[in-house]
Amino acid sequence: MSGSTLGTLFCVTNFGESHGPAIGCVIDGCPPGMQLAEADIQHDLDRRRPGTSRHVTQRNEPDAVEILSGVYEGRTTGTPIALLIRNQDQRSKDYGEIAQQFRPGHADYSYWHKYGLRDPRGGGRSSARLTAPTVAAGAVAKKWLGEKYGTRFRACMAQLGELEIPFESWEHVPRNPFFAPVADVQRYEDYMDALRKAHDSCGARIRVQATGVPAGLGEPLYDKLDADIAKVMMGLNAVKGVEIGAGFASVAQRGSVHGDAITPRGFESNHAGGVLGGISSGQDIEVSLTIKPTSSILTPRPSIDIHGAPVQVVTKGRHDPCVGIRAAPIAEALLALVLMDHALRHRAQCGDVAPVRP
Amino acid sequence: MSGSTLGTLFCVTNFGESHGPAIGCVIDGCPPGMQLAEADIQHDLDRRRPGTSRHVTQRNEPDAVEILSGVYEGRTTGTPIALLIRNQDQRSKDYGEIAQQFRPGHADYSYWHKYGLRDPRGGGRSSARLTAPTVAAGAVAKKWLGEKYGTRFRACMAQLGELEIPFESWEHVPRNPFFAPVADVQRYEDYMDALRKAHDSCGARIRVQATGVPAGLGEPLYDKLDADIAKVMMGLNAVKGVEIGAGFASVAQRGSVHGDAITPRGFESNHAGGVLGGISSGQDIEVSLTIKPTSSILTPRPSIDIHGAPVQVVTKGRHDPCVGIRAAPIAEALLALVLMDHALRHRAQCGDVAPVRP
Amino acid sequence: MSGSTLGTLFCVTNFGESHGPAIGCVIDGCPPGMQLAEADIQHDLDRRRPGTSRHVTQRNEPDAVEILSGVYEGRTTGTPIALLIRNQDQRSKDYGEIAQQFRPGHADYSYWHKYGLRDPRGGGRSSARLTAPTVAAGAVAKKWLGEKYGTRFRACMAQLGELEIPFESWEHVPRNPFFAPVADVQRYEDYMDALRKAHDSCGARIRVQATGVPAGLGEPLYDKLDADIAKVMMGLNAVKGVEIGAGFASVAQRGSVHGDAITPRGFESNHAGGVLGGISSGQDIEVSLTIKPTSSILTPRPSIDIHGAPVQVVTKGRHDPCVGIRAAPIAEALLALVLMDHALRHRAQCGDVAPVRP
Amino acid sequence: MSGSTLGTLFCVTNFGESHGPAIGCVIDGCPPGMQLAEADIQHDLDRRRPGTSRHVTQRNEPDAVEILSGVYEGRTTGTPIALLIRNQDQRSKDYGEIAQQFRPGHADYSYWHKYGLRDPRGGGRSSARLTAPTVAAGAVAKKWLGEKYGTRFRACMAQLGELEIPFESWEHVPRNPFFAPVADVQRYEDYMDALRKAHDSCGARIRVQATGVPAGLGEPLYDKLDADIAKVMMGLNAVKGVEIGAGFASVAQRGSVHGDAITPRGFESNHAGGVLGGISSGQDIEVSLTIKPTSSILTPRPSIDIHGAPVQVVTKGRHDPCVGIRAAPIAEALLALVLMDHALRHRAQCGDVAPVRP
Repeated sequence: MSGSTLGTLFCVTNFGESHGPAIGCVIDGCPPGMQLAEADIQHDLDRRRPGTSRHVTQRNEPDAVEILSGVYEGRTTGTPIALLIRNQDQRSKDYGEIAQQFRPGHADYSYWHKYGLRDPRGGGRSSARLTAPTVAAGAVAKKWLGEKYGTRFRACMAQLGELEIPFESWEHVPRNPFFAPVADVQRYEDYMDALRKAHDSCGARIRVQATGVPAGLGEPLYDKLDADIAKVMMGLNAVKGVEIGAGFASVAQRGSVHGDAITPRGFESNHAGGVLGGISSGQDIEVSLTIKPTSSILTPRPSIDIHGAPVQVVTKGRHDPCVGIRAAPIAEALLALVLMDHALRHRAQCGDVAPVRP
Repeated sequence: MSGSTLGTLFCVTNFGESHGPAIGCVIDGCPPGMQLAEADIQHDLDRRRPGTSRHVTQRNEPDAVEILSGVYEGRTTGTPIALLIRNQDQRSKDYGEIAQQFRPGHADYSYWHKYGLRDPRGGGRSSARLTAPTVAAGAVAKKWLGEKYGTRFRACMAQLGELEIPFESWEHVPRNPFFAPVADVQRYEDYMDALRKAHDSCGARIRVQATGVPAGLGEPLYDKLDADIAKVMMGLNAVKGVEIGAGFASVAQRGSVHGDAITPRGFESNHAGGVLGGISSGQDIEVSLTIKPTSSILTPRPSIDIHGAPVQVVTKGRHDPCVGIRAAPIAEALLALVLMDHALRHRAQCGDVAPVRP
Repeated sequence: MSGSTLGTLFCVTNFGESHGPAIGCVIDGCPPGMQLAEADIQHDLDRRRPGTSRHVTQRNEPDAVEILSGVYEGRTTGTPIALLIRNQDQRSKDYGEIAQQFRPGHADYSYWHKYGLRDPRGGGRSSARLTAPTVAAGAVAKKWLGEKYGTRFRACMAQLGELEIPFESWEHVPRNPFFAPVADVQRYEDYMDALRKAHDSCGARIRVQATGVPAGLGEPLYDKLDADIAKVMMGLNAVKGVEIGAGFASVAQRGSVHGDAITPRGFESNHAGGVLGGISSGQDIEVSLTIKPTSSILTPRPSIDIHGAPVQVVTKGRHDPCVGIRAAPIAEALLALVLMDHALRHRAQCGDVAPVRP
Repeated sequence: MSGSTLGTLFCVTNFGESHGPAIGCVIDGCPPGMQLAEADIQHDLDRRRPGTSRHVTQRNEPDAVEILSGVYEGRTTGTPIALLIRNQDQRSKDYGEIAQQFRPGHADYSYWHKYGLRDPRGGGRSSARLTAPTVAAGAVAKKWLGEKYGTRFRACMAQLGELEIPFESWEHVPRNPFFAPVADVQRYEDYMDALRKAHDSCGARIRVQATGVPAGLGEPLYDKLDADIAKVMMGLNAVKGVEIGAGFASVAQRGSVHGDAITPRGFESNHAGGVLGGISSGQDIEVSLTIKPTSSILTPRPSIDIHGAPVQVVTKGRHDPCVGIRAAPIAEALLALVLMDHALRHRAQCGDVAPVRP
């Protein structure tokens, strides 16, 4: 299978480029009979879309989704669900220079070496714009998992550059322009303003969680649940690290601490992050992502052009100074897609699972 | 595809249980014409096998591999290469108790909930013993990549419990029983001895590196090279975190620092870890793994039995007090399998790649 | 992988329903750098589209294709090529009755039992209209194989109902409204007119051929070239039989006759149909398909409704009295898609193949 | 996925060569909890194995199967089931000549062109001996489908060379050395004796049937049930044609005849062969295979050697004069593997199916 399809049974095939006529995806394998309309998908697209605050790219895209197939009289038919999003704010500009140079930290260099040519407009295929179809597909997965098992997904920012963000409450997240679980906004706005003024960018850490996950999902030996979660998260643009549960902290833990004690009422802690031996345990799935600083900055950087000659690259245009800010809904979607696929895979081999016990 | 096959074109199908008659794998898709003999595989199996020092499990397994197919007159024929390793030191003991209880931190609980039954002998399918066939398959991948592109793989321990291990030289690794890149051994032996005396276990961090990697490997949007690396590493027993390049440190980096400058002579740093936009850049691939402390310890832990009644679990038997110690050759093998698969995938779409330039 | 994707490396994901807003496909894995424009695809779509003679359905669809992605400045970039065809002549009518009944010989009954619901408008997903995206994708495969190896595809009608059609010349096919390799048209028009007057339908046999096929394509043991050809052909709407080379005639042949003699100048016959041991031999690929008579006829047939009550079903509307008439370009496309996929698979494992020698 | 794995969810990976140390397979994805022992598999292996009459190859292979994994205390655990069959009667002989020549009608020529080398001993990987692991895996599928849905499989010879075989009763098949559904044996023995005396071989036609098949199996658009059946059947050694239901006869049928009428008591005929729109209808699955005459004959045939020089090839050694004779149990196994895989795929998307109504 080629690389633009995600999933073994709930298969999402993504297409499009940042400045082409349209982006979208085809979802194949969705269970039939679920009520589905554009509005079910649009909500998450709106959470992800650009232009919602001054801290993200100012590109103006309504990201209105059209369902082209797979739904009849408001219900999924079990046939492929094609989702189409027309690009609208592709500014016409001269890409001649950018097409000839490799921006440091960008996919330009590696795409060029792989394919021998590339679509340079707005990053082409490597643009984070292509996470929109992923989010759309994730909304379908979330709906089915929610209705079938009561599974819920949420994500928040846990660190912005050097600023560790305390966890206050999930309730702050929808109102916080940084998806941070805090009431305070000023501290982060000031930080971002200073960064922008310095013509620089910063990284972020995102926490993602799924609750109400049935036990038993995951396919050892190689398609373990945590393996597939790590795959989709690391595959998200700019991610450089993924942790499950205690993650990197587990290096210095003792076995007598890390192994979550079990009682008749359930687990007493969740260092495992909801996955044991690569299979869900019924605990919350807990994932953490590291997102690198945006490579598109106004500060000049040394690089080379396609002929190997040295150049200084400055990336103008509309860019997110911290791509992590809009990553929360994307990370939720990715986690939902993995769980959806594994729910179907589990059902194939082992039969229908019971809903997780509260 | 079911979960015991790794790879899209260089496909490794793993089988076996810790205490069954045999373990092994079938490699399908290996290019024809490569010289291959058992000795090419045995070397890495010997590096991984138990019983090589007092700091790892004392189970005595020669792990002698037999090539059952796919090789004729010393060369691969392009047909499946079946590798067989007979289990020899499965001690007969009573698994009645362990079969009825869930060891905290173990796969017992989740396997039970997934399949409704499990092979409890030595952990059954969830045992780290099943990494042996992975290592064997990895040796085949290493050989082909080495001959074709000059790609080389190496791994070392970077942290043992709380002990950060300074990087002195790769040359120490083969002689160091902890796969540590240092001349000193005593510090780590003392640490492990104290741990064992405390009936406890600890985690580790492993660094893995591939050099001589061709640029252009990786299949966006979803099968990026770093995504597949993260998948196999997180899928390794006990791993809770994976980093590529600067990894978690990139959160607090600035874009002006993180994006590796390019000059006519090559990249000036490697924060990317050899992957840009999910495609190899030709730089060294740099990966770091977090391994949790072994769950099998002599310290009693609260748990439940299969009927939900509370029990205290003590795990006797032969176990690694730090599973990270033997992880270095496994991590190399996993990285080699991912690169091998992507080398073939790249060749399929884009034609033969040129060997990486020195 | 779900069922709407064809191919392992050159992956075509098909979507849409007969009367939904649009149909189309996403091609993932196309080699980069090939010149491609809508016109390259439109030609084959025009050969397949309805309304071209009075012997096929009178539905009026321009089947104009739009390339949504994967092409930049007239060349494929190696990223997914999304192709969109808007449905235009979906007549609004009452599908209430047809939605409640199972037409004999149709997919109604089995779709209902599989999914629990179905889109009844014009056959929904089971309509032969969904062969249009397949033909579009096939045109891309044909172009690449033609440029790379000189491979060419052609198909013709070999039998129409009881009428065996003599093979006169491939040159007649483009001008013959039945895709028959004969100058005569009248005989077949008379036959079809009588059939239509009788409110009935008939079957057909189609011959498909590929020339200029490199030797070495096919992946034993289970993905042999002939196996994959048989799969796509049998998967085409209404096909009930597939032959390769001598096909069913080989039952009564002797081994001394069937086994094609080889000389220094090449093979002396082609009973094998271009495939030996599941791998192409470099000879022409020869395939024959049996297509059943259209189930949609005006003659009343006994059936049941969704509640199990007996009904008499008459299928009105616009239908092909012989679906085989338009099958030739579809069969060519399917053969091209299989060869394309196997060309890439072969290149992955064995390296670039030399063009076939004339 | 490489070509030696069959199935999407019930995955059978086949390995081995005719004269290597062993052949076998790994079944991944088998549902857990089913009772399974070697005896369940051995029965079908014994039906297929050589040496059972003077009309098949005299190679003496017990084909004793060993279960290496995936079964604990007599039940499947859901983990891979590895099956091993040691080759025992590989006669040591000089393969020097055969290794340098291409036998007409054989895989020699195409394997050589694909891989650049081949294992010539007894046909190597292209030998029909590799159907033994397929039969073994099929026995596991048959058992599960039989217990779950009451599905049963049977096959018989329908034509031997020019001799059409009348269908008398399925009861004759187990006692007839040709798997023919007739009491008479003499007619077929005389035919085969004359053939052998003439140093020649003949083809055969095999009928395969599955009863008790649930409605709803099959994954349009490209993985239809009949498509996957055609694939596995055409992929069987020597098969040149596959029909479903009325098959080739449907060309000359009228739509008013072919479309099976439905009544409240069920279908009134089965021209469809149990598949409508690529999905099982609950009727019996009916398949017919054409098997070409064996290419290994004592009559000299013109060919070339690997240097392109003309040679006369005579194939000595132990060979089946009609490979169709032993094909019946293999065809049953292949049909079972397809239905098993589709049963799991259907369950994944649509939930557990009810057993078919009698």
